[in-house]
Amino acid sequence: MSVPRRNEVVLESVRRLLRMGATANLLNLLQKQHPADLAQVFAELRDKDCHAVFNVLVERNGKLAVEALSELGPEKGSMLLADRPAEEIARLVQELPSDDAAGLIDNLPDELSSAVLDLIRPKPGGGVSALLEYEEQTAGRLMNPNVFALPEDLTAGEAITAIQTARDVEMVFYLYVVDQRRHLVGVTSLRRLLLVAPETPLKRIMTTDIYSARVDTDQEEVAREVASYNLLAIPVVDQENKLVGVVTVDDVIDILKDEATEDVFRLAGVSMEDGVLTPPRESLRRRLPWSLVNLLTAFGAAWVVSRFEATITQVVALSFLMPVVAGMGGNAATQTLAVIVRGIALGELTWTNARQALLKEALVGLGNGVALGLVAMIGAWALTGNWALGVILGLAMVINMLIAATAGTLIPLGLRAAKVDPALASSVFITTLTDIFGFLAFLGLATVFLRFLQLGPMS
Amino acid sequence: MSVPRRNEVVLESVRRLLRMGATANLLNLLQKQHPADLAQVFAELRDKDCHAVFNVLVERNGKLAVEALSELGPEKGSMLLADRPAEEIARLVQELPSDDAAGLIDNLPDELSSAVLDLIRPKPGGGVSALLEYEEQTAGRLMNPNVFALPEDLTAGEAITAIQTARDVEMVFYLYVVDQRRHLVGVTSLRRLLLVAPETPLKRIMTTDIYSARVDTDQEEVAREVASYNLLAIPVVDQENKLVGVVTVDDVIDILKDEATEDVFRLAGVSMEDGVLTPPRESLRRRLPWSLVNLLTAFGAAWVVSRFEATITQVVALSFLMPVVAGMGGNAATQTLAVIVRGIALGELTWTNARQALLKEALVGLGNGVALGLVAMIGAWALTGNWALGVILGLAMVINMLIAATAGTLIPLGLRAAKVDPALASSVFITTLTDIFGFLAFLGLATVFLRFLQLGPMS
Repeated sequence: MSVPRRNEVVLESVRRLLRMGATANLLNLLQKQHPADLAQVFAELRDKDCHAVFNVLVERNGKLAVEALSELGPEKGSMLLADRPAEEIARLVQELPSDDAAGLIDNLPDELSSAVLDLIRPKPGGGVSALLEYEEQTAGRLMNPNVFALPEDLTAGEAITAIQTARDVEMVFYLYVVDQRRHLVGVTSLRRLLLVAPETPLKRIMTTDIYSARVDTDQEEVAREVASYNLLAIPVVDQENKLVGVVTVDDVIDILKDEATEDVFRLAGVSMEDGVLTPPRESLRRRLPWSLVNLLTAFGAAWVVSRFEATITQVVALSFLMPVVAGMGGNAATQTLAVIVRGIALGELTWTNARQALLKEALVGLGNGVALGLVAMIGAWALTGNWALGVILGLAMVINMLIAATAGTLIPLGLRAAKVDPALASSVFITTLTDIFGFLAFLGLATVFLRFLQLGPMS
Repeated sequence: MSVPRRNEVVLESVRRLLRMGATANLLNLLQKQHPADLAQVFAELRDKDCHAVFNVLVERNGKLAVEALSELGPEKGSMLLADRPAEEIARLVQELPSDDAAGLIDNLPDELSSAVLDLIRPKPGGGVSALLEYEEQTAGRLMNPNVFALPEDLTAGEAITAIQTARDVEMVFYLYVVDQRRHLVGVTSLRRLLLVAPETPLKRIMTTDIYSARVDTDQEEVAREVASYNLLAIPVVDQENKLVGVVTVDDVIDILKDEATEDVFRLAGVSMEDGVLTPPRESLRRRLPWSLVNLLTAFGAAWVVSRFEATITQVVALSFLMPVVAGMGGNAATQTLAVIVRGIALGELTWTNARQALLKEALVGLGNGVALGLVAMIGAWALTGNWALGVILGLAMVINMLIAATAGTLIPLGLRAAKVDPALASSVFITTLTDIFGFLAFLGLATVFLRFLQLGPMS
């Protein structure tokens, strides 16, 4: 949980050198850092300081500066670039691998983004603009198009020579093999090349059973494939199975992290663009609409309660126990929802075992309801001195926890069937649902059995 | 979100062949699968079928069988092993890398686990038992001790020969260089070896600035380091900086996934051992204690409300609006909590910016409270026809949302300072807190301004 202390020291030094105006020393310090550590520094500095540090770095070591931006993530990184001329941005981003450059450019203001793209496009290859032609969140957008491939008719010895003379290849732990028209036909490794006689044909030592992604494959599916088969990279092919790029495991890690944050945030009803470092006005703007929807549903619950005004007027102690009904239903719904949503995300919950999962959650809900209902019954008696009130609370809790378990399972599964993110069945939303049904059960039962309630002594 | 359809087809075929008793065909199908896909099959089959399939596989292809178990995860995997004799388990797990074997053995019932360890220990090397001597969740437990290292006094040519003759080395994309006493001194790559003349000393082409983890480093810190510096593996050293193992990126991915699930589950008050496939009785046993604590706090809220019996008796419409106060406070607290807990997990929230984060959340809470309070004021008037009630509801909401924002920030930060997982400040818990303070504010204000409430016409 703790950030390495080294970064805190660096951060303090950066602040001090900045105050002293010791630019040369500052630059010296910055250049010793890994881009990921610089990104952390940028994330923690105030806006003004952040721009000042970035300015110092960009003048002397543009490559490191943009690498740090890229590590900071495309949204935040492009904010630091946005007040610079298009020419400079174009020069800077060309220091990056095309996939990272595309991410930064894509997040610039529209006009600036197309100006930068125009400046880059004339270059041969045009990797960046090509990438931007793929849909967001696909393998095509994510991949690095600069992939090293060996023609299938080489020998092992020739392949080694080809690697020795290749320039600027990102990583070469997997060596992809292509035919004359660049169709992906196999994969081998540098180590395997070294283990055979130099005249061995590549075809003989390559594996043809190869995992690959298509340019239009969803990035989360790419991530899942890389993660479950323990791959270090996955080749990306076009519709004709031609090799066009590679997605490496470091990109996959970023996707998995984002996906996890997305699950937590959506369950809580927070937008993915929100975060610790988001300006208050921006956070407010993003949370308000969701909260307004929730306010509306809360008034739904209020309306339900208001329908039972006559009952509550006669047995005011009912109002004391309403928070218990609502709270316990919400608790059960949140638990079920977390298990189901995460189960879907991890691939543990599939259509084949959905019925089993529903049955299980219903059983757990029932068990929970009975056990907690009994305890609550005693609690209600202790609080109000009314046995009948305790029985009604207990019954309402059993009903409500069954509803919570069923809704907590069926709603995310339904969303998934509708190809919507199941985490959108946020706990906030389901909690209001259990409020409404909980109050209906509790106050409804109380209305039906009103005469029993009035028998017991009231506190 | 969707599991590849291929797996569903395989699963159906497995079920069909199992019913038909077509063992040879079944085995044939199983052997064509990747261990990760087999793990998925095991996860989806009912217990009885699962054991049957595992039996078929273990007799003919023990290695694949345990690899699948290992992919299934040590907890579930060891369940399939637990009814076999220790001798057979010992033989099977020796087919796995030591780290995976250690995971499976460690999760067997205690007696069986030590029996298996005794059978393995005599073997030279004894990798598995050595690993189990490290603390759980450390780099030492996670690493693969079978790490390939090159002596620093070799030349590039000699190093290549050493690689060609090495056996059974997991992966060799990073080549670690050690001195005579096996201290880690540098790192190089196979590609770099190929780019220089064979007589170049290794010392000249190695990088000495190297990221490493110590055996006692927490596994989450290892994961964070590998993820932020985009490493494919990280060497693990002992207290004397001697190279003892390597943690690879596939292990890091598993840790990051578990960590994400942990965040979602803890926020929802669910145990990490719970899941879609957990038996109902087990889930119930794990959720009940937490729910009981929550029931207790819910009765705290009920008690608070009961203190205002006199007020509610006079203005029963107050009870209609209680769900609005509670619901909106809970909503705001859950939002803040998700942002803060995830911010801590991702390293965005540190001690240096904690004050800024608190101020920001408080501002957002205030803004949210004012905006929603105004809308709620109108809603309350519409529902009850009582303007004063609306004003009190609005004021209570502002207060409650400020409390929600403050508690949602300070409690996880406090837990982190106490070195407890911040996600334990579960939304369920904080929601009850906002219930209590919300009711205190709402009913307290109502009691103070009771005479204004009684002025308005009631519905």
